[in-house]
Amino acid sequence: MFLMRRSRCVVLKSRPNPNVDLGNFEMENRNLRPMEQGEFLVKVEYLSIDPAIRTWINTAASYTDAVPIGGVVRSQGLGRVLESKNDKYSVGDIIVGWFGWQEYSISNGQDVYRVKEGKFPISYNLGILGLAGFSAWWGLNKIGMPKEGETVLVSSAAGSVGSAAGQLFKRLGCKVVGTVGSQEKADLCLSKYQYDVVINYKNTDAPIDEKIKQACPNGIDVYFDNVGGVTLDAVMKNINTFGRVILCGTISLPITAAPPQGPRVERTLLIKRAKMEGFVILDHMDWYEHAYSEMFEWVNNGSLVSKEDIFVGLEKAAEGLVRLLAGQNLGKQLIKI
Amino acid sequence: MFLMRRSRCVVLKSRPNPNVDLGNFEMENRNLRPMEQGEFLVKVEYLSIDPAIRTWINTAASYTDAVPIGGVVRSQGLGRVLESKNDKYSVGDIIVGWFGWQEYSISNGQDVYRVKEGKFPISYNLGILGLAGFSAWWGLNKIGMPKEGETVLVSSAAGSVGSAAGQLFKRLGCKVVGTVGSQEKADLCLSKYQYDVVINYKNTDAPIDEKIKQACPNGIDVYFDNVGGVTLDAVMKNINTFGRVILCGTISLPITAAPPQGPRVERTLLIKRAKMEGFVILDHMDWYEHAYSEMFEWVNNGSLVSKEDIFVGLEKAAEGLVRLLAGQNLGKQLIKI
Repeated sequence: MFLMRRSRCVVLKSRPNPNVDLGNFEMENRNLRPMEQGEFLVKVEYLSIDPAIRTWINTAASYTDAVPIGGVVRSQGLGRVLESKNDKYSVGDIIVGWFGWQEYSISNGQDVYRVKEGKFPISYNLGILGLAGFSAWWGLNKIGMPKEGETVLVSSAAGSVGSAAGQLFKRLGCKVVGTVGSQEKADLCLSKYQYDVVINYKNTDAPIDEKIKQACPNGIDVYFDNVGGVTLDAVMKNINTFGRVILCGTISLPITAAPPQGPRVERTLLIKRAKMEGFVILDHMDWYEHAYSEMFEWVNNGSLVSKEDIFVGLEKAAEGLVRLLAGQNLGKQLIKI
Repeated sequence: MFLMRRSRCVVLKSRPNPNVDLGNFEMENRNLRPMEQGEFLVKVEYLSIDPAIRTWINTAASYTDAVPIGGVVRSQGLGRVLESKNDKYSVGDIIVGWFGWQEYSISNGQDVYRVKEGKFPISYNLGILGLAGFSAWWGLNKIGMPKEGETVLVSSAAGSVGSAAGQLFKRLGCKVVGTVGSQEKADLCLSKYQYDVVINYKNTDAPIDEKIKQACPNGIDVYFDNVGGVTLDAVMKNINTFGRVILCGTISLPITAAPPQGPRVERTLLIKRAKMEGFVILDHMDWYEHAYSEMFEWVNNGSLVSKEDIFVGLEKAAEGLVRLLAGQNLGKQLIKI
């Protein structure tokens, strides 16, 4: 006898116009469809709240299809297998996958993976050991290629990607400078994430490019960019010969059909023989296991640290996203269901 | 007895303000200093007139020191050794080096090289087999990395770098589209350089981005950029996922202390996982011999072709440069002394 299971979920009600707000979402209670052979049922325990969700719920040019109106909001989650008709996944397995903003999710095993338990909260698999940490690892190793002694700037330095990037650069012997939007985040970067210098861009005592110049008297060799916009402009004024700009996020820019105006970069990139390259981590999952095994050790031995900012309750998901986009979180934003 | 030799030269009289004009230069007749041990005297036969000279005579941020007021204008040249106190170079050797806009030059052998004679004019060593051809080769191989069947756009497609790049891309099986500023250049690209489609950007019947879209219905995989500015903007509207933008020149932009405004590229580069990278060929002379030997064969067997636009007389050097910057040349601009 099949018992119909109900699952609470958060669906997209309307698109951001232009900003994401609580009214774009609504809670629903939906029947779960029956599981088929090869599938398994996951009880979702944590949701990862990421800046990228802003992109996924917009229809403007992107790297993936937009979440449809009425669709469950796309999101990575971590959960346990509750029932299984799949040989590879057993009841009790802890897995990460694209479960969306809902209590239960049915998966056929595509794009999910089992996680290892260690001396850290299991939810780290959605942050420092998830796509955030992996983004930092990939951007640094495959685009930034920092050398010991180089000066590196990381924007959104206290964020889930930035805080991982900062520590990974430091581990390689770079001088690491961060930009953040609050004193609290600056303190966190200095006390916990090993940044050498942190700039709070909201302190308007001096223009950001002058602050960066002061913090990076030898110029910037690598910039791990999570924000784009005026911070990137300021970096370009201070970029060194053979500099590398890793484009991981553009959270400071609105999502618009036509790009906003800003200072042209082509001549600076030419004169400085510099590079600017964007990446989307989902293209590089073939490197995930390699990166995971490296970072697992460091997280487990306490040399790579993380902070989480956890809201409790699925009904808090939208609020978590709005808060993240406003930069009000402190640490990796998660929802515990 | 040392016979004092006089050499006519063109010196920088004033800096461009903002455009290069004939008044920025003047002819002089100077005494040549005595040669020292290890040096040799070159009778300069050809001068290479390059867009980069615009950069070298400006003081705005660049990759090299500006030519001082009163200094001989910096330029590559080709000449023959007339007298030698250097074991490696003998009277009659044909060499290329940074001889400047002058009839005679004394060299200690630094940054000069001997050229091979082939079934082509010796002056090709300042163009298709000189830094222009080498720039095309390096940008294509080291940044663009085109694959067979990809769509490539080349700006300044009939220029000394562009015409080489277009042919090298075609040789690899790419679809090659060029942009030029006259019908005459368009015809040359189609009849001689194997371009598949050529866009004359001065025909204003449709915006450049629409013309590019029409010429590149599958989008652009690689852009070999010699101009920057609005052509680059139009490319960014049509760039493909994992696209590569090779920044080789920015001749459409003024040389200013602060960059002019334009559409921001960071979000497009991110969404498209694309790369934009500048290079200055002088950084890569370690690859020159390799590239030269490859291209020498192709030029010698007629599968890589070139056109020259030669002015006669050192006194024509400034006019050659002004003409080049106005896009009025047709082929590699040279001065024959």
